[in-house]
Amino acid sequence: MTGQNEVAKLGHVALVTPDIEKSYWFWHDVVGLEEVERRDGHIYMRAWGEFEHHSLILIPGERARVDHVAWKARKPEDVELYARYLRSQGVEVQDVEAGEEAGQGRAIRFKVPTSGHPFEIYYDMERPGAPDEKRSRLKNQVYKAWSRGISPRRIDHVNITTSPTPALTQNWLSDHMGFKMREYIKLNNGDVHAGWMSVTPLVHDIAIMHEGKHAGPRFHHVAYFLDNAQDVLRALTILRDHNITPDLGPGQHGISQAIYTYVRDPGSGHRLELFSGGYLIFDPDWEPLEWREEELVEGLFWWGDRWAPGSGHAMDETTEA
Amino acid sequence: MTGQNEVAKLGHVALVTPDIEKSYWFWHDVVGLEEVERRDGHIYMRAWGEFEHHSLILIPGERARVDHVAWKARKPEDVELYARYLRSQGVEVQDVEAGEEAGQGRAIRFKVPTSGHPFEIYYDMERPGAPDEKRSRLKNQVYKAWSRGISPRRIDHVNITTSPTPALTQNWLSDHMGFKMREYIKLNNGDVHAGWMSVTPLVHDIAIMHEGKHAGPRFHHVAYFLDNAQDVLRALTILRDHNITPDLGPGQHGISQAIYTYVRDPGSGHRLELFSGGYLIFDPDWEPLEWREEELVEGLFWWGDRWAPGSGHAMDETTEA
Amino acid sequence: MTGQNEVAKLGHVALVTPDIEKSYWFWHDVVGLEEVERRDGHIYMRAWGEFEHHSLILIPGERARVDHVAWKARKPEDVELYARYLRSQGVEVQDVEAGEEAGQGRAIRFKVPTSGHPFEIYYDMERPGAPDEKRSRLKNQVYKAWSRGISPRRIDHVNITTSPTPALTQNWLSDHMGFKMREYIKLNNGDVHAGWMSVTPLVHDIAIMHEGKHAGPRFHHVAYFLDNAQDVLRALTILRDHNITPDLGPGQHGISQAIYTYVRDPGSGHRLELFSGGYLIFDPDWEPLEWREEELVEGLFWWGDRWAPGSGHAMDETTEA
Amino acid sequence: MTGQNEVAKLGHVALVTPDIEKSYWFWHDVVGLEEVERRDGHIYMRAWGEFEHHSLILIPGERARVDHVAWKARKPEDVELYARYLRSQGVEVQDVEAGEEAGQGRAIRFKVPTSGHPFEIYYDMERPGAPDEKRSRLKNQVYKAWSRGISPRRIDHVNITTSPTPALTQNWLSDHMGFKMREYIKLNNGDVHAGWMSVTPLVHDIAIMHEGKHAGPRFHHVAYFLDNAQDVLRALTILRDHNITPDLGPGQHGISQAIYTYVRDPGSGHRLELFSGGYLIFDPDWEPLEWREEELVEGLFWWGDRWAPGSGHAMDETTEA
Repeated sequence: MTGQNEVAKLGHVALVTPDIEKSYWFWHDVVGLEEVERRDGHIYMRAWGEFEHHSLILIPGERARVDHVAWKARKPEDVELYARYLRSQGVEVQDVEAGEEAGQGRAIRFKVPTSGHPFEIYYDMERPGAPDEKRSRLKNQVYKAWSRGISPRRIDHVNITTSPTPALTQNWLSDHMGFKMREYIKLNNGDVHAGWMSVTPLVHDIAIMHEGKHAGPRFHHVAYFLDNAQDVLRALTILRDHNITPDLGPGQHGISQAIYTYVRDPGSGHRLELFSGGYLIFDPDWEPLEWREEELVEGLFWWGDRWAPGSGHAMDETTEA
Repeated sequence: MTGQNEVAKLGHVALVTPDIEKSYWFWHDVVGLEEVERRDGHIYMRAWGEFEHHSLILIPGERARVDHVAWKARKPEDVELYARYLRSQGVEVQDVEAGEEAGQGRAIRFKVPTSGHPFEIYYDMERPGAPDEKRSRLKNQVYKAWSRGISPRRIDHVNITTSPTPALTQNWLSDHMGFKMREYIKLNNGDVHAGWMSVTPLVHDIAIMHEGKHAGPRFHHVAYFLDNAQDVLRALTILRDHNITPDLGPGQHGISQAIYTYVRDPGSGHRLELFSGGYLIFDPDWEPLEWREEELVEGLFWWGDRWAPGSGHAMDETTEA
Repeated sequence: MTGQNEVAKLGHVALVTPDIEKSYWFWHDVVGLEEVERRDGHIYMRAWGEFEHHSLILIPGERARVDHVAWKARKPEDVELYARYLRSQGVEVQDVEAGEEAGQGRAIRFKVPTSGHPFEIYYDMERPGAPDEKRSRLKNQVYKAWSRGISPRRIDHVNITTSPTPALTQNWLSDHMGFKMREYIKLNNGDVHAGWMSVTPLVHDIAIMHEGKHAGPRFHHVAYFLDNAQDVLRALTILRDHNITPDLGPGQHGISQAIYTYVRDPGSGHRLELFSGGYLIFDPDWEPLEWREEELVEGLFWWGDRWAPGSGHAMDETTEA
Repeated sequence: MTGQNEVAKLGHVALVTPDIEKSYWFWHDVVGLEEVERRDGHIYMRAWGEFEHHSLILIPGERARVDHVAWKARKPEDVELYARYLRSQGVEVQDVEAGEEAGQGRAIRFKVPTSGHPFEIYYDMERPGAPDEKRSRLKNQVYKAWSRGISPRRIDHVNITTSPTPALTQNWLSDHMGFKMREYIKLNNGDVHAGWMSVTPLVHDIAIMHEGKHAGPRFHHVAYFLDNAQDVLRALTILRDHNITPDLGPGQHGISQAIYTYVRDPGSGHRLELFSGGYLIFDPDWEPLEWREEELVEGLFWWGDRWAPGSGHAMDETTEA
């Protein structure tokens, strides 16, 4: 890996939905994201604390799938350098012209060679202000908070699944994109069952877990961040009053220490994690923490609503990526 | 019923435990109640916001059972008047002399005729201050809050079970003690499966539920109140770090709107509910709310960690009362 | 006093505003109360957790004043009995016919003889459901919570001021309406400077404080209750993003232990307290707590944003009652 | 600047106190930090979420001053490379041998040339576990949380003051240590009055403000982080029950969006900020946000308890650095 490979942050996810009206109702009315732009049927959205043009794109389509997960490069020139790097590795790279995606400059797309997940690398992204009536009076915040629905602050991470083993993909992300392993689960048979990786001090910008049901690249969830644990409880009240039953929560993971609730967009089945807490890793000499198979239950569920992975629980479902 | 029958509030519960050391560790170190007095092996405890001498008595004994649930009368003379009333109803009444229970004046004990639950009626109770080093600097608060463990403010309610039908006992509590039904579950066969009753504006000072496993009077839990929903989450962290696994929680009941977590004293198996939220009923013309069988799941579990009553879940267990 | 004099609870306040559009924007859009009915220019509103028809009436008028503070009687017949009682005391009583105030049955109005504050006594009040799209899926809750703005649960108390001494009015409320003194401030000259009184287990349904600036009956604030302390912080964010500067807060009073923020309706100047926490008094033998002059600062301000009463601070302002 | 100059994170502060018993009581009993080691009268402490050996050193001495503020380098070799770099710039560098400071490897100390603040650069630091009875059952957390007092998770940032203008020091930190300006206040006379700078995604690892009273390097506060806004309110209750009056709070800054309370160690006068919330900056193309003089009040105080800088308020005090 060369230095320019290490990305800066998770930028956005683009989700294809077969029922864009219902998906819009979920992400806009219930979750409370703001609509930034509509173009060619695509709806670009972001949370109140986000400066870049979008952290979510809703795309109408025949079946639910992830169109791409986008990562922001560290420098303008890194997009082009990374394209060359990938091609030199034999990875097929698709060019995305400036403006092809609203608000975004020149970018590239490719599929993670080990898993097939569709990734995008971009650097330039517009930072539009909010319309007057929605603008926060704070200059370090784009929109008023608490305007509507659950009202998370920002996108946090994605969680993807792959079969048979996520280790290949974890290694690829480490070797070719600069992700550092922070915590992982190791089964007694030696398999790394799940890994939490980041390029930022967040415990994870991406988690890569074992997929038990489907071949091909799969998507478990995208997470949005809430400032306080109590906000996750408030979110549950809002979900239930909208007649939406969450998949799981509230609870606290041991791994990452996240306070969580999981719920699926009823228009597409794509899952959202409402996430608070967690811890930050500032130490450059952080050693990845290993959770063994017998520690799995506590690692996954420190307290609260839990499920047995692989039991056919709603949380075992994934969408196509 | 005559006016003097209506009690003023739940005063305390006296719990017999076969392992008083472990029970003391739980209620004192983990829950954070304060010890007020020890006498004859009985430990008298209360929460930081309570003025009366005790809200919990731990009593060493061979097996776990509830010694009594105590209700404060509205007037000093009501204790004697109520004894006469009960005897006129053919109920056996036991005299408790002043000082027989530490800090307490003359009281009476009897068993609820329909269910056998041991009740106490008292009026006079000492209101000792806290020792200097534990005393709150607020004059409307006895102890410093947040000194140790979970640190609830006050006792809230008791939940008892009886078989085959709780309706008889609900009626007795209404007819002879002044409890008003606030919410109840009615099965399709006409049975009132559970009822939430109060003499105060709390939705319940006592709940009476159907007992599915045991004959005789049974005890489901005593609840202590926490000021904020987030305090229940903090309690879960404290429990787990003490290697205690709660029976259920966190979640929010539909009925009563309580934010809850349930956990059993590992010394006795008696269950504690850590409780926040809920609503208050000030209307004298409140009509009891009926939840039908098909509404049961939502009535019991608005969101969060839930169980199927009767499934053999830990929450189905009760202790002897 | 006879038994029927003791009222059951605070029902509503009727506030006259010279700018009803701005007042409606404040109470509806910012605070988040729901509009129940408009009639003859009067707007009837309530919070999401309230069953009775209204807890606030906005009335257009030339200058800001309190039209009345309404108390619910304990029994239907008490309204008439209380009218007779007042007249027997030489108090002028005004009849309010059923339906004269929307949703309300027969009521009476009078002025507190010692202070001139306009009070109403009612019993019958409609309990309308919410329109479908606003209705909570919980049957013990009227509207969805968190629909808009600050979103308090219910009305809590009123705070009125009178000069030169509030003791006369405190005594009148005790002798003629059944209010019990819970906490009070006693100056070194023997004056009771402020008193917190209730007929419910709330520490106060009404506070009566010394008025330093104006003759005649005055109004300091009406309080609405929020379930959690953090909700008061969220309210501050919402206020500031609406370009509203609160008078005071956040902070915690020693007296009543309330977590508070105070803010004035910009259309009328009537003040709202956003209130959480506090404690409940269930003991019939509660002794009023006395705060002496030298304890005043801590009694009023346990922590947080404070003011020096009488200093000309915004909190010294009152409106006409 | 060369790449190895950019530090990784704030490591610890070493505070000299004239009353180490009282300071220990404050930081250990009230704040709730854990004692890791005592050596030569120095007390090494850390918070429950910290892996490195210490984030605070208490040093007995004649008068309160900051002994040093320590920054962790990004790579082991950077300590030596940075020493050479500083010497090449004419900065006097002091060697700190491995073990000279408990738990720490080879380090260097120097004074910021523009302001005189004593800085340390280290890389190697032991990561001792907690004693069994204090150890968290989570492997990504060192100690049980909520064991004692306020119980913050980790150190967050330092705030230093310098006169006459902080711009020189802000530039030095940018040019020679890799700190990026995130937000700043610009007076109408062109002076940058205060700047918030970081090498991490935190809005600030260090703030450099104008010092109005003292010549020489001064220290305003060290901040520790709490997971939730409500934890700051709980901290206030704990402080007040220990008879400690905070300097300021609670409130929310506009700049950094921090929920804050400030309080001074009564043994030394060194100030602690109890800090929650804030936002994270992941964008490599972040443009520093400028707050103009007329925006100053809102930038500093979005809501809550505030002060007028320069008014002689307790918050204007600083300690020697």
